[in-house]
Amino acid sequence: MIIRRAREEDFDAIWQIIAPVIAAGETYSFDRDMDRDAGFQAWMTPPHTTYVAEIENKIAGTYNIKRNRAGGGGHVCNAGYMVADWARGRGLASAMCEHSQREAKDQGYRAMQYNCVVSTNTGAVRLWKKHGFDIVGTLPKAFHHPKAGYIDAYVMYKSLMDDPE
Amino acid sequence: MIIRRAREEDFDAIWQIIAPVIAAGETYSFDRDMDRDAGFQAWMTPPHTTYVAEIENKIAGTYNIKRNRAGGGGHVCNAGYMVADWARGRGLASAMCEHSQREAKDQGYRAMQYNCVVSTNTGAVRLWKKHGFDIVGTLPKAFHHPKAGYIDAYVMYKSLMDDPE
Repeated sequence: MIIRRAREEDFDAIWQIIAPVIAAGETYSFDRDMDRDAGFQAWMTPPHTTYVAEIENKIAGTYNIKRNRAGGGGHVCNAGYMVADWARGRGLASAMCEHSQREAKDQGYRAMQYNCVVSTNTGAVRLWKKHGFDIVGTLPKAFHHPKAGYIDAYVMYKSLMDDPE
Repeated sequence: MIIRRAREEDFDAIWQIIAPVIAAGETYSFDRDMDRDAGFQAWMTPPHTTYVAEIENKIAGTYNIKRNRAGGGGHVCNAGYMVADWARGRGLASAMCEHSQREAKDQGYRAMQYNCVVSTNTGAVRLWKKHGFDIVGTLPKAFHHPKAGYIDAYVMYKSLMDDPE
């Protein structure tokens, strides 16, 4: 598996991965009817730095990093990850999570924050915890899930500093 | 005191209020060197709906509302409030907080979330609690305060539904 910076010409493959996740609307708070151009804007353009994970030269996953807030919040980044259906169960999300933390540190960030981890997405919650993220907040009924209705979402957070002091 | 929708020509007065708060960088996570044009974009343009509070026909405070997230998070709004120095202690922040909740409900929102309430801003924390907001999350060292260094920030949240079920 190789993880590398995404190029504009990767977006066909990236869109194949992210479009169904966006349209399903069960795990990320994107507008579900987002078209390809809006998807490109939301996933691939600055302030995002975007990456792809390849298995046997085929793009199997993608993630991006961006500053979570401006000003006094500018040392905290946000990241989002998506894996192709055919590539599930092969450790891609874990590999991208670890990779993103190293990249974020290289970019000068001191912490990483996930703003809206949908509570029914238990696999993701478990995985992020395994990679050192804590649930630091619970947003009551903050996510409208197409099947489950209004459900809680979590704010998850991890310091990227070796010595958080 | 009158609270009404802001008009473009109000921005001179609004900028006088928000510029020093932004430049101080102690309570909001805007880039501190933001200029007037960037301030207009950040405070006055869609997706924000922006309001002013007037005392004796003089703009004394301003706030805005916007959707906090897209998609499944689109029923939760975010709001920000600023009061002119000369108008402090006259209940403007309280009045704008209440007004914003009514406006948000009218706009169809079901909840209001403050993403980054700086922990040293104890007056604001107390006020938002008084108006029904709960601290639902603590972001460790997520805000870099010009004087206090890396300090915690809170996520505060309030349901706007009479019956939150």
